[in-house]
Amino acid sequence: MITVIAGGVGAARLLSGLVEVHDPADITVVANIADDIELHGLHISPDLDTITYTLAGAVDPDTGWGLAGETWAAMDAVERYGGVTWFRLGDRDLGTHLYRTQRLGEGAALSQVTAEITAAWGLRLRLLPVTDDRVRTMVTVDGEGEIGFQEYFVQRRHAVPVTAVRFDGADAATPAPGVLEAFARADVVVIAPSNPIVSVDPVLAVPGVRAAVETARDRTVAVSPIVAGAALKGPADRLLRELGHAATVVGVAELYAPLASVLVIDEADAALSSAVEAEGLRCLVAPTVMSTPERAGALGTTVLEALRR
Amino acid sequence: MITVIAGGVGAARLLSGLVEVHDPADITVVANIADDIELHGLHISPDLDTITYTLAGAVDPDTGWGLAGETWAAMDAVERYGGVTWFRLGDRDLGTHLYRTQRLGEGAALSQVTAEITAAWGLRLRLLPVTDDRVRTMVTVDGEGEIGFQEYFVQRRHAVPVTAVRFDGADAATPAPGVLEAFARADVVVIAPSNPIVSVDPVLAVPGVRAAVETARDRTVAVSPIVAGAALKGPADRLLRELGHAATVVGVAELYAPLASVLVIDEADAALSSAVEAEGLRCLVAPTVMSTPERAGALGTTVLEALRR
Repeated sequence: MITVIAGGVGAARLLSGLVEVHDPADITVVANIADDIELHGLHISPDLDTITYTLAGAVDPDTGWGLAGETWAAMDAVERYGGVTWFRLGDRDLGTHLYRTQRLGEGAALSQVTAEITAAWGLRLRLLPVTDDRVRTMVTVDGEGEIGFQEYFVQRRHAVPVTAVRFDGADAATPAPGVLEAFARADVVVIAPSNPIVSVDPVLAVPGVRAAVETARDRTVAVSPIVAGAALKGPADRLLRELGHAATVVGVAELYAPLASVLVIDEADAALSSAVEAEGLRCLVAPTVMSTPERAGALGTTVLEALRR
Repeated sequence: MITVIAGGVGAARLLSGLVEVHDPADITVVANIADDIELHGLHISPDLDTITYTLAGAVDPDTGWGLAGETWAAMDAVERYGGVTWFRLGDRDLGTHLYRTQRLGEGAALSQVTAEITAAWGLRLRLLPVTDDRVRTMVTVDGEGEIGFQEYFVQRRHAVPVTAVRFDGADAATPAPGVLEAFARADVVVIAPSNPIVSVDPVLAVPGVRAAVETARDRTVAVSPIVAGAALKGPADRLLRELGHAATVVGVAELYAPLASVLVIDEADAALSSAVEAEGLRCLVAPTVMSTPERAGALGTTVLEALRR
């Protein structure tokens, strides 16, 4: 049994590798939902959808999110009205949000709806939102005040200075059915190469989850999202710096040392290996840049074998 | 000043004729919103949209509603999930519902959002929802109980027997800004050839509206939606019969006699002219089937001149 803490694109790529080298039926994904957003009355779950579309082989290969071959008729129409278009939703992708919103309105839990959506795409692994409750990452932007995560990430292209991040609603949230069990029963827990601050931390912020991962520390492997001092995608490096951490694999090691016994870092950071281990976890050096399916599969194997090496 | 009580397709066609023969800036439409529906979290206003798309020259000419050249990627995706697809929403049309829902969620009134949408389409007449409040036509189906209007009209293709119709929320509704004034100031009030039971009656059911039309009776012209004992579109004939009215121009005359001083009936019903007048309003016989823009324009002229003849 493998349980993976997942954000969006980086996690989705690692998962696409893991399902090539391990039976998907034995894989549970505990995904971030704190960057979900309500727009146009629709409930949008970017990380759940990125993972689903990627594993279904339907993701847009150029962006790493959204659907390949997407059309934009609805968004063009919204634009005509002068509506909200900074968060672009393709026509086929809209179908997912329409369905999710309809089902949530009928009283279904997000975890239930997610199971329905992944089943429709033929996914065999289990994709769990970390909670069925509402948790939202709120970002305090220097000189502007607190804004929603997508307002920071998409609308401002994460190009503004951040002074604080908090997870609104996390204190009152409950782990979705199966989440805590997935950590307790896992032979391997994987912290995917997602943003530690805004993808992994909001998963851990749901009461009970951090403790469940800490309890599984000896079985937990993290993959650094920082390679050579930079995030492959998104603002992980910048956020780490702005919030007082080192934007290096050592900074990641410091954050993950209470949670994981192994940190996988890229070959580009091999020289930092002993500094990583000084943080109190074992360091494994391997190619981590998943530029091809083969490389994603190889990283999957590395991660699954990490505890044995 | 002309004020038109409007439902969907039939009203939209008459309006497309009226704006050809009269300055649109002097036309106010008071439209039914009781067949609005919330689906997928979206607020859908079929009559407002049918009127808007028709007057913009963008309506699907085959159906009389929806947009010409529409695509269906979102709905196909919803279908893949086994979601709600009996109410088909095209991709471009979805843009309208996304925009409307977003704006309503921001606190804008339906009348304000409608003004924004019609402005974006370049409409010069004023389209007013009869109320900014929530009114919903509820239909009691024999052997099934009460269902929403669209569940009756679209999902059951209005092919089930109806025993009652009521307008949920009407008692507590307030006319939208400008509605009562539009009747008070009108030189001509037109009751469009819409369904008397489920398009016109829910407009009249908003407190103050029926009285405003009754006050304007001498200035009010109605166009029969029944031609030769049948509705040109939809269940008007069937509903009239099921609810105890004659499904003829005489049945329409009986309903509209307190509201209008003239009823325009089709040439096909010329023989019923004196029976119509026996109900207490003047009968005008003219071609009413708007099968071409020219015929719609001619009917517009007929209606505007009806009070003088």
